[in-house]
Amino acid sequence: MKFPLLDNLIRELARFPGIGPKSAGRLAFFLLDQPPEAIERLLTSIQDFRANIGQCPECGCLTEKETCPVCSDGSRDQRIFCVVENVRDLLTIERSGQHKGQYHVLGGALSPLDGIGPEELTIRKFLERLTGNAVTEVILATNPTLEGEATASYLGEQITQKFPDIKITRIAHGVQTGGELEFADLSTLAQSFQGRRSL
Amino acid sequence: MKFPLLDNLIRELARFPGIGPKSAGRLAFFLLDQPPEAIERLLTSIQDFRANIGQCPECGCLTEKETCPVCSDGSRDQRIFCVVENVRDLLTIERSGQHKGQYHVLGGALSPLDGIGPEELTIRKFLERLTGNAVTEVILATNPTLEGEATASYLGEQITQKFPDIKITRIAHGVQTGGELEFADLSTLAQSFQGRRSL
Repeated sequence: MKFPLLDNLIRELARFPGIGPKSAGRLAFFLLDQPPEAIERLLTSIQDFRANIGQCPECGCLTEKETCPVCSDGSRDQRIFCVVENVRDLLTIERSGQHKGQYHVLGGALSPLDGIGPEELTIRKFLERLTGNAVTEVILATNPTLEGEATASYLGEQITQKFPDIKITRIAHGVQTGGELEFADLSTLAQSFQGRRSL
Repeated sequence: MKFPLLDNLIRELARFPGIGPKSAGRLAFFLLDQPPEAIERLLTSIQDFRANIGQCPECGCLTEKETCPVCSDGSRDQRIFCVVENVRDLLTIERSGQHKGQYHVLGGALSPLDGIGPEELTIRKFLERLTGNAVTEVILATNPTLEGEATASYLGEQITQKFPDIKITRIAHGVQTGGELEFADLSTLAQSFQGRRSL
């Protein structure tokens, strides 16, 4: 007994991270039971999100306007930058309320085996952003993984060479080693920020 | 820092069963990273599924045509009916290959507290389907829950009253009591079918 449309939908839903064919089946039947308005709302929310969410040309954060909420907020500290691998990490830190300055999203971490070198990340752009601004500190909040640590070291060296007066710090290892920053609870993140050390 | 479109998408995705706000966030960022063709494929698969999947007017199974693959398959045994609560249960049994006859989907189980009585299910329609056909056996494959058992008893009595010659069986409790049929593994389902007993 074949239902090509059902099978097709299950295949598409099972492409989501963490969703296998069985969960995808449940989701498909959930969609079948929903009223047409609910389906319309879901489809519209996906389309609107994709059509109107962009990347901030300055820091690489999400934005629904020209520049992102952080870069366009004049009341935030212009002297402290926090560098993260991706936007999810930025949002997690922002929720913790530990950082009131600027952000920079690298777009990943250095990983030579995967062909990700400095030019694949927004490192050059970041060094430009530091130029001519009275930046006093850069907090390196890359993930505490091999790649994240390597990225922090590399970035630390680059900044020190060009801007010897900028203090460079690394968030403390309150975040579990080998884990992913976006899943850290808020108190762990608070510890990480308070225990940051000079590189 | 607010992203209304992101928040809106997360809220919609978190309505799926088994998906909380954190998983929904992951799904949203996954959607952000997908190429436009992949988004188009996903949206189309949902729309096509909703627009073209209907219910078989005979048995209540899914169908992408007028009647479902079971009802329109003349080679299946017309004398044995298997009664299930919902389409997912039907598909699970079908995958086990244990039943080569007809199906009937009740659309749920009796649950007076939730206002679900015999008229809310397709029981009347099922008794009509039995009329005038040389049916020899009805297998009651409702879930081994309180509601499922009550539904099986009620249905058994109704069938016996009107069709005293039809043998009524219940799938054996190889399926875990209190569990849900759709999650049973195939060998458990095989045991359930082989160990079915007369009511």
